[in-house]
Amino acid sequence: MARVAVTDGMDPEAIITLKKLGHDVVEQHYSKQELETGVLSEFDAVIIRSATKITEKVISKSGKLSFIGRGGVGVDNIDIDAATRANIVVCNTPRSSTHSVVELTIGHLLASCRHIAKADRSLRQKSWDKKILKGTELSGKRIGLIGFGRIAQGVAKIANSLGMECHAYDPYLPKDIATKFNTTLHQNVDSLFRLCTHISIHCNLTQETYHLVNGERIEMMPGLGADGVFCGNHIVNCARGGIVDEDAVLKNLESGTLSSAALDVFENEPVKDNPLVMHPNFHGSPHIGAATAEAQYRIGQEMVTLLNSHFKGEKPHSALN
Amino acid sequence: MARVAVTDGMDPEAIITLKKLGHDVVEQHYSKQELETGVLSEFDAVIIRSATKITEKVISKSGKLSFIGRGGVGVDNIDIDAATRANIVVCNTPRSSTHSVVELTIGHLLASCRHIAKADRSLRQKSWDKKILKGTELSGKRIGLIGFGRIAQGVAKIANSLGMECHAYDPYLPKDIATKFNTTLHQNVDSLFRLCTHISIHCNLTQETYHLVNGERIEMMPGLGADGVFCGNHIVNCARGGIVDEDAVLKNLESGTLSSAALDVFENEPVKDNPLVMHPNFHGSPHIGAATAEAQYRIGQEMVTLLNSHFKGEKPHSALN
Repeated sequence: MARVAVTDGMDPEAIITLKKLGHDVVEQHYSKQELETGVLSEFDAVIIRSATKITEKVISKSGKLSFIGRGGVGVDNIDIDAATRANIVVCNTPRSSTHSVVELTIGHLLASCRHIAKADRSLRQKSWDKKILKGTELSGKRIGLIGFGRIAQGVAKIANSLGMECHAYDPYLPKDIATKFNTTLHQNVDSLFRLCTHISIHCNLTQETYHLVNGERIEMMPGLGADGVFCGNHIVNCARGGIVDEDAVLKNLESGTLSSAALDVFENEPVKDNPLVMHPNFHGSPHIGAATAEAQYRIGQEMVTLLNSHFKGEKPHSALN
Repeated sequence: MARVAVTDGMDPEAIITLKKLGHDVVEQHYSKQELETGVLSEFDAVIIRSATKITEKVISKSGKLSFIGRGGVGVDNIDIDAATRANIVVCNTPRSSTHSVVELTIGHLLASCRHIAKADRSLRQKSWDKKILKGTELSGKRIGLIGFGRIAQGVAKIANSLGMECHAYDPYLPKDIATKFNTTLHQNVDSLFRLCTHISIHCNLTQETYHLVNGERIEMMPGLGADGVFCGNHIVNCARGGIVDEDAVLKNLESGTLSSAALDVFENEPVKDNPLVMHPNFHGSPHIGAATAEAQYRIGQEMVTLLNSHFKGEKPHSALN
């Protein structure tokens, strides 16, 4: 049986199951320094979320470690190439959090366009700002989805039922998948910005997508909805920080080119003294896309399956290397 | 041509149209005292929203006034019987704001269950409260819709696409309408509370519905979702203040029986010193269900049609008396 470090938390039921299966589980968050000086060498497996960064240096000090499990989707906090060279399998849980992120994305879109966070702030300040809180409907507007994997497909399904016209950019996707979701696939990302008043990010963070949402592209957005209503421009990111240039977002909120921005993820997390989060037309959340009881339960159960497969000598179903 | 008082604002394009049609339009809000001392007697028509209260006393001093137009749905601020006796036609614009209220309802539901307003507050306070902001999905849960008119039907359509199981109570509705929206119609309101973790109000305020959502019924709610996940109990009201007993909501937020409450409407508006709006698990908005560019445009256009019909000697299509 394996000695397992759980460094960023995991669903309690999954911890119980791992222990019942005979694994030795240590729930403990380690600092960068502890990781770089070999604390993981005492373990066979480590289960992380986004807070623990598994760099090449960490891997070089990780002894007999043979399994890195990422509860969630994004693996930009793991040096997979270094793990491969060290014979360590890396797995994520790509499906478990899909619907939670879909719901947060739609929630942020509706909350942005109807000023829900701002309205609540204003009530708490004993104001009744009915007039300045006039919003716009999503119905009749175009949404541009950057990346069209499972999460974006789920968002497209709900956006369609809300009466939005769906567009997407995903260079890695066959065109017919978009058609199934009543979504138009674009050949370049600029045409999405030129056409859509609402943009939602659903891609990974890579060198290709770093600051993909920049000032130049934000300024391409039309402001005028497909239905002829001036609804302004709106950006939501529940995918990964760094894809959106936060300085450009703040500048364009200040100029009015952007009417709202809602970010669940940031280039530097946790957020400290980021002036963007104080802007009246911004609202955000602290990376809670997968922070639901349902997603955490599913992630925990999937992680138990992945870890068991690995230590039985099988290749786990979501192995990335 | 008519002399028209617009007392609570109207879409600028509708004002322009009325003037082009030759009507004499005065945009001015009047106090209770001005209304009760006969300010409306100088007009043929008055166009209001919710802020102006047309009581029997106001009507008794309204001279030749022959048309009251309510931009929006609820007419509880108009004494329709007194208007009828005074030969004044009362019209509302019941369809124009439907989709705006549907979107706000879904927005409030998602914002409640994912703590969007609380998350934004916490970021502005320089916190990163990822752990305490764990929410629950709407998918797999039961929503109970009180009233099943156009707005509730629109909510059911989106709730279905989110994966919710829809239930409704509406004693005035034939059963087959609910079936069309994949919704189960209940014979009494208590069974809705016993079954559903999420309740959304979509009925009028009448003697029958005053404080329909009370402490006794809130305590019937199951807390446990249809999918076996403990999601707590959640109430949304974007219909009319007074249907929800706000003291009971606060008490049940404090005890934890309610996990969240989101109100767009209040028994006393504007809200002043209501302790409910300060509760951490409450979030609200200042009666902005119809406060979208789209709804205001549609309301304005519908009002022009209603007023023209009336002064051409026809019965306006939404005449309530």
